Amino acid sequence: MRYVFLCCLCAVYRCPILVRLRGFQKLMSIEEARQRLMDGLKIKRKNVMVSIYDALNRVLAEDIIAEEDLPRFDRSAVDGYAVKAEDTFGVSQFKPKTLKLTNGNEVKKGEAKQVWTGNSLPKGADAVLMLENAKRFDDEIEVWTVVTPGENVSKKGEDIAKGEIAVKAGTRLKPHHLGLIAALGKSEICVFEKPKVAVLATGNELVETGQKPREEQVFEVNRLVLGALCLELGAEPLDLGIAKDDVAEIAEKIRFGLEKADMVLTTGGTSVGASDLVPTAVNSIGKPGVIVHGVAMRPAMPTALAIIDNKPIIVLSGNPVAAMFGFEVFARPLILKMLGVRCERRPVVNARLTRRTTTALGRRTFVRIRVFQRGGEFYAEPVSARGSGIISTMTRANGYVVVPENREGLEEGETVQVHLFDTLEEADESV
Amino acid sequence: MRYVFLCCLCAVYRCPILVRLRGFQKLMSIEEARQRLMDGLKIKRKNVMVSIYDALNRVLAEDIIAEEDLPRFDRSAVDGYAVKAEDTFGVSQFKPKTLKLTNGNEVKKGEAKQVWTGNSLPKGADAVLMLENAKRFDDEIEVWTVVTPGENVSKKGEDIAKGEIAVKAGTRLKPHHLGLIAALGKSEICVFEKPKVAVLATGNELVETGQKPREEQVFEVNRLVLGALCLELGAEPLDLGIAKDDVAEIAEKIRFGLEKADMVLTTGGTSVGASDLVPTAVNSIGKPGVIVHGVAMRPAMPTALAIIDNKPIIVLSGNPVAAMFGFEVFARPLILKMLGVRCERRPVVNARLTRRTTTALGRRTFVRIRVFQRGGEFYAEPVSARGSGIISTMTRANGYVVVPENREGLEEGETVQVHLFDTLEEADESV
Repeated sequence: MRYVFLCCLCAVYRCPILVRLRGFQKLMSIEEARQRLMDGLKIKRKNVMVSIYDALNRVLAEDIIAEEDLPRFDRSAVDGYAVKAEDTFGVSQFKPKTLKLTNGNEVKKGEAKQVWTGNSLPKGADAVLMLENAKRFDDEIEVWTVVTPGENVSKKGEDIAKGEIAVKAGTRLKPHHLGLIAALGKSEICVFEKPKVAVLATGNELVETGQKPREEQVFEVNRLVLGALCLELGAEPLDLGIAKDDVAEIAEKIRFGLEKADMVLTTGGTSVGASDLVPTAVNSIGKPGVIVHGVAMRPAMPTALAIIDNKPIIVLSGNPVAAMFGFEVFARPLILKMLGVRCERRPVVNARLTRRTTTALGRRTFVRIRVFQRGGEFYAEPVSARGSGIISTMTRANGYVVVPENREGLEEGETVQVHLFDTLEEADESV
Repeated sequence: MRYVFLCCLCAVYRCPILVRLRGFQKLMSIEEARQRLMDGLKIKRKNVMVSIYDALNRVLAEDIIAEEDLPRFDRSAVDGYAVKAEDTFGVSQFKPKTLKLTNGNEVKKGEAKQVWTGNSLPKGADAVLMLENAKRFDDEIEVWTVVTPGENVSKKGEDIAKGEIAVKAGTRLKPHHLGLIAALGKSEICVFEKPKVAVLATGNELVETGQKPREEQVFEVNRLVLGALCLELGAEPLDLGIAKDDVAEIAEKIRFGLEKADMVLTTGGTSVGASDLVPTAVNSIGKPGVIVHGVAMRPAMPTALAIIDNKPIIVLSGNPVAAMFGFEVFARPLILKMLGVRCERRPVVNARLTRRTTTALGRRTFVRIRVFQRGGEFYAEPVSARGSGIISTMTRANGYVVVPENREGLEEGETVQVHLFDTLEEADESV
């Protein structure tokens, strides 16, 4: 009923349902398209050993299990004096107590031994008095602060106990993970190999950046942008160059990409109607070929997804902004899966929309947003753009908001969740 | 008055004011310490030309100014038919109109010409009808949708006009910036050189990861962690190795670092009282030497800042977590300044604190936090830790909250701003 009702309005309102019928016959939802791709692929990963000095941002292939306790022994957490805690009971600034300094390996009743952060706790001691909470006189110290047993002591195994998982497989290794792994004494670790992603641009109008364009030629930017997006994720881009609008040439280059890489991205030559050069080329190479063509999203509606010999091909729009969002929605999660990352979201921030923005019903819309902070509040300013070819809308934005298919836009003042693809620029506070 | 009042309570509550008096005499505020460092330095940057293919994450040294309009000509933003808009006025699904297809360079009244996205607009045409909004019959099309003049046309200069600044100097180059620069035809750009940061660890107890430790030895992790933090920012770390607790050896290694690098980081050998080996070594090298020692923060209180021959030396705690926060607060902003980045914040997210956490008055406290999302809400779980040597508190956390000096903690349910140093792991929504 709803369908028919909407269709009656099509001629007047250019409703997306009509677009759907006349263009792609049926636009698929993002979820269904993603699911088809994932269902059709069996992702295989290879492991490789690397030095922890080369492991930043790599993805751990195996759990790191502690072979020993960390710390390996009870140690002082501060610079100070190892004591028996009970020797400090009852002291105060008005009733200080004197302890004798020892150089031996053991602290007896009435004694203290100077220790530095990280030193092992001498036998007999059960707490450490901070340096600044005692006054030293030659071979004794004056104490006026009570310490409790265990105070300022890092107990053996307190950080990580022997046999415990220190870092889980699938973790993207950040500096702090590397620190923990190194603290356990491991200098070589097993990570997943970087997936190789081949990138092909198509289009007769394209010319390489740096060359002199003829009238009506356009600089090709998508290979650079998509390659950089791959590098950001930790994948390895492989440049397939530019193909003319020719099915045979496109097919040959994609075939080469499938041979050399784990995944192929193409831009251009996918649309409605007559210009489906890339899907046609892909289908000429092998099976199953194109499994999705046309997605209910904006931008990036003409995106196609294909599989050949268990390798994915993401057929993106030639439009730079649409190519970036097609990558974001389909290539990014797939590359993360190939990388073996358990989960990795872009940072998000909740912000108040500075003005109303309209979107089309029936399409999930990705609105480019500039987030800024003023007076402690975050604001989301939609970056206006008419076409998805306007690259500067991406450089003026630092994130995007996702508007669901069943909404016609967002209201001014509404709190939205912004996914950040660049840093927040304005700050009125510092740490 | 307040000062005296607090001091009376010291013996009982171990108030920070007492610590301040007995330990460092005076702990400096983070702002003052930073200001002293910045005031004492004259930061010089060098420029270098790089290919846009090597420019990801580099920092632009000069404004990129458009030498031509982008687009360079009026072009179609969609696949479709270039038309005179007025030819579509009054049409509807119930009253379609027929236009004659032309192959010429001009569209006359009653004519249409097929165009693909990015094609230049033929002479005479002022709008583009989307492919799916027309039906083609041999040499004519049936049109039932009105287009307005300029519709689906990217006007010359609409993205960036000639002479406009496309990307500002000081921008960290992300894929979308590279895309815009390439679209303007630039293949080589001027970026700032990467600052070199030398990293030295000190401590008799330290042993290299991968070696077999003797009893009481501890694996050295700080050079790896700090080097990785430098790499993350786009700086170039230089490993100075491990120095024994010996002023002469430490001084020699720092001197080497100052010669080879733009900045030196050290860990260990800074504390209260007797173990100030690194500050002593630094002061033996040159002037002005140590300008800050002891900061009103937790962790990382014993951090010292020094300058020799206009090069900064950040003297960090040997404690891995304290070293990381000392880096965050002092080294990170300084490296960003040396990199030439205009501004770069860590992503932040507002979240509700899951439980109360107490902090010390008089110190700015950095509480490690695990942020997670449940039912659309973000929650901030403080990661409990007794000592700042517990590295796993960093791997269990993905961000931190800053508690100001005048607060004794944070309340359960309070909304806090979490600075993220790792990705958000749990999501119950997808894009």
